[in-house]
Amino acid sequence: MAEDLSQLSTAHRTALLSRDDRLFHVILAQQFDRELIQDLCRLAEMIRAVAEVRSGAQFLNTLLGHKRAMLYFIQPSTRTFLSFTAACQVLGMPYNEVRNASTSSEVKGETEDDTVRVLSQYFDLIIMRHPEEGFAERMAHMQNAMRRAIPIINGGSGKDQHPTQALLDIYTLHRCLTHPGESRPKPDYSPNPFDGKTIAFVGDLKRGRTVRSLAYLLCHYPGVKMFFVSHPDLQIGDDIVEYIQRNDVNFELHDDVRTVIGDCDAVYMTRLQDEWDSQGESKAIDYGKYCLTYDMREKFKKDLVIMHPLPRRQEIDKRLDNDSRAKYWDQVRNGMWMRAALIATTFNIDARIIDHYHSYYAH
Amino acid sequence: MAEDLSQLSTAHRTALLSRDDRLFHVILAQQFDRELIQDLCRLAEMIRAVAEVRSGAQFLNTLLGHKRAMLYFIQPSTRTFLSFTAACQVLGMPYNEVRNASTSSEVKGETEDDTVRVLSQYFDLIIMRHPEEGFAERMAHMQNAMRRAIPIINGGSGKDQHPTQALLDIYTLHRCLTHPGESRPKPDYSPNPFDGKTIAFVGDLKRGRTVRSLAYLLCHYPGVKMFFVSHPDLQIGDDIVEYIQRNDVNFELHDDVRTVIGDCDAVYMTRLQDEWDSQGESKAIDYGKYCLTYDMREKFKKDLVIMHPLPRRQEIDKRLDNDSRAKYWDQVRNGMWMRAALIATTFNIDARIIDHYHSYYAH
Amino acid sequence: MAEDLSQLSTAHRTALLSRDDRLFHVILAQQFDRELIQDLCRLAEMIRAVAEVRSGAQFLNTLLGHKRAMLYFIQPSTRTFLSFTAACQVLGMPYNEVRNASTSSEVKGETEDDTVRVLSQYFDLIIMRHPEEGFAERMAHMQNAMRRAIPIINGGSGKDQHPTQALLDIYTLHRCLTHPGESRPKPDYSPNPFDGKTIAFVGDLKRGRTVRSLAYLLCHYPGVKMFFVSHPDLQIGDDIVEYIQRNDVNFELHDDVRTVIGDCDAVYMTRLQDEWDSQGESKAIDYGKYCLTYDMREKFKKDLVIMHPLPRRQEIDKRLDNDSRAKYWDQVRNGMWMRAALIATTFNIDARIIDHYHSYYAH
Repeated sequence: MAEDLSQLSTAHRTALLSRDDRLFHVILAQQFDRELIQDLCRLAEMIRAVAEVRSGAQFLNTLLGHKRAMLYFIQPSTRTFLSFTAACQVLGMPYNEVRNASTSSEVKGETEDDTVRVLSQYFDLIIMRHPEEGFAERMAHMQNAMRRAIPIINGGSGKDQHPTQALLDIYTLHRCLTHPGESRPKPDYSPNPFDGKTIAFVGDLKRGRTVRSLAYLLCHYPGVKMFFVSHPDLQIGDDIVEYIQRNDVNFELHDDVRTVIGDCDAVYMTRLQDEWDSQGESKAIDYGKYCLTYDMREKFKKDLVIMHPLPRRQEIDKRLDNDSRAKYWDQVRNGMWMRAALIATTFNIDARIIDHYHSYYAH
Repeated sequence: MAEDLSQLSTAHRTALLSRDDRLFHVILAQQFDRELIQDLCRLAEMIRAVAEVRSGAQFLNTLLGHKRAMLYFIQPSTRTFLSFTAACQVLGMPYNEVRNASTSSEVKGETEDDTVRVLSQYFDLIIMRHPEEGFAERMAHMQNAMRRAIPIINGGSGKDQHPTQALLDIYTLHRCLTHPGESRPKPDYSPNPFDGKTIAFVGDLKRGRTVRSLAYLLCHYPGVKMFFVSHPDLQIGDDIVEYIQRNDVNFELHDDVRTVIGDCDAVYMTRLQDEWDSQGESKAIDYGKYCLTYDMREKFKKDLVIMHPLPRRQEIDKRLDNDSRAKYWDQVRNGMWMRAALIATTFNIDARIIDHYHSYYAH
Repeated sequence: MAEDLSQLSTAHRTALLSRDDRLFHVILAQQFDRELIQDLCRLAEMIRAVAEVRSGAQFLNTLLGHKRAMLYFIQPSTRTFLSFTAACQVLGMPYNEVRNASTSSEVKGETEDDTVRVLSQYFDLIIMRHPEEGFAERMAHMQNAMRRAIPIINGGSGKDQHPTQALLDIYTLHRCLTHPGESRPKPDYSPNPFDGKTIAFVGDLKRGRTVRSLAYLLCHYPGVKMFFVSHPDLQIGDDIVEYIQRNDVNFELHDDVRTVIGDCDAVYMTRLQDEWDSQGESKAIDYGKYCLTYDMREKFKKDLVIMHPLPRRQEIDKRLDNDSRAKYWDQVRNGMWMRAALIATTFNIDARIIDHYHSYYAH
């Protein structure tokens, strides 16, 4: 804990978050290489399949009844919070929550480090969302120094990292690109379904953290092409562009989704993040260039994957909601399965789930 | 969803809420005919009996562990909320909650339809309480249009409908009128224990929705007589009076409970709903005519059923609380069992509970 | 309920809280004699041991699934609240919560007695924390008068009583003094490990209720010596001093922890409770005399037990946190086990836990 994290290399930081070569803390997108991503996608798909049968759902329900999770959500969030709670419930893990600063500030004069250390006495896992950049990582290192260390999962920390959103996004892409048109695919993912595929990111790419994390992960997949489609004032950060170039991944910058939509295999829409405006500067932007309208369907590829991290505003016409290519509702549900897969992996019960899956489904 | 609900007949609306002739969504009091009411009362009674034995309670606990409920309570409510959560717990169903507008408004610029659609990805049932009239019904129809439709239960929607309160009230009456004086009756309800019985509704009948819904349900029972006892300014609405007349049910309007209490088999007290006053007009009303006092006991019938939806103020003297005819505390507990019966019916596990009941208790 | 509690003797009040000679309501520190304390410590230790093994944790998890707890926490509290919820989860007992006055005041015009009576219809146990002195005790007596009485546990009531904190403190002392240096002791407590031992209470002893309750309990143990180390303006109350004298227990008053620390077997640090200041009077106090610093380690006995009810400020140097004599984090966790032991005893499942423990661990 005495170490200054910013002085360490990413590889070193990542190593500190694992244990015996297993995933322990979940903090940074950089912890996930292609193999681990694929394992998690496969496990998420198996959990989904097992949960669909009553006896399977009951089996999952017995797995973590003896553990307890704390959801320490100091930054407001409804859907990430509920996604994690549903994931806990899928695995039968009881949880509790601390959801705002006023609840915790009540403990007068206590440092937040002490608060988290107290919580770690009652629980076996802390899932945290926090406005301070690097907070989750710092708490993970504090745990590592304790006699009874428990894992930390980062549910969003500052403006930078939101690794579980990136994982659910890549799970959605894996799923839809490997098995286009199938709503219940088998978990036999190809290691690289992205080869030769074009993914467009559309909208406010400068201020949304989901696209940033997902772009990092996609650099693990040779042959993918990324389009960043945005008003010049809201384009993706230079650090991401440099990272992509360093990894020799194909990309293009565009400023109108209408000119590129016909070439896309997947399109990831995002809303205008105008809560970050300092003086309403984004009002001047014609967001019509960054929306999917109903009549654009004509140009869509047959198996286009339409995604959105939600909440949405007008970026996607509501009449597309029931089009089979609209995957943003599935994406929400995928988040629950991916988070269940992460928790299961953290507690080393992935092998039990895989065994159960094979004994029932694989013949 | 494109249909305008107000253009449909009640029969058509009711049909849309069922599935394969089974209860699916629970939205309107009009969905419940005498047979369904009786089935639900019987099931509620069985759940109560089963839950009293340790092994029975554990059996119930295993029934819905593989499902998850969302309590979307945008209108404040403690007792209805807790009654539903306890009902979920009786059946072992995990749940989560969204309890105020600020939590959900956080999702900036999102429509509430999108919010509910997102929630429906994580959960298998949504129980909702909402200030907007017709909201629950609209959400039920939205679900019907989705690939993975989940049931909606209306826990109070606008000023009009509160079907689960009406059901717990009629369960309480069924129970007490069929088995006067027994605290643990068998679930062998007579189909019409109301024949020849007089039920008085007392207090602010104009502005409380519980009496309105209950009056609708009582019209299914020939031979019942209803007294509406209220100050003329707060009498029951003309629409209810017309509905009762159309159904050939006996009723009388009164303005002083003291003159009729001796004739009543059940009396349903309500509080003054002065939060709806526009300029304090109800302050002028002498509410003493609409209260049960301790010395009125002399006039009570031996098996009078005293009810109140709670919270109460001075309508019932506290010294009556421990009189065996005071059923308002039992009424609270009955709500939990009736809601468990509704949830069980929604998920088609009623037959399993009935089987369990008969194998243990019926000989 | 009609009785005026303040007119009753402590013995009579205590008797009213039990049932068939068993613990029923948990309200006052005075309910606990040496034998009951020892039984609870032993049970807490067994629950901890059982919970450490997966099959044991699962066994505990099945014990109270058929019961439901209400946490009625009108006075803000995070750690006591979470400690109780975790204890419920250890025993598999579902719970729900009412956490602030605004939630309950919503029920317009209802008395709080009615609110609690309503809650008692849904739940099988109410754990309450309330700003009003004697509230929990009054509610316990109200329950005793009801047909279906449920137990009440006092989680802190007014400035005076916080019995579960006192029990977790004495459990921590029992544990550490009986088995110095062992992190997983066997539950074979000596009946009086306090004989010949010195316990120092340091800091704001006038305004913290934890020290007061713990001092009461320690008077059951002959041979113990208590040091009260505080600024004269913040010394322990005269009522406690008189009580200790009446019980012939050794004690000394001091005003600087540095002069006595070398003689202590346990030291119980507390923070300045300046939220009770009427005009900032405690700002003048030099709190340096009531702090443990890093260099004081030299003087510590080898097996000194360092305790703190938390939250802390500067009373304990953070560099002591990972010293094996620092027991304040363990103390937090001990609270969870002790509360689980209390709940188990309340529901008469202590014998089942003891049997399970012996069948697995005692040979």
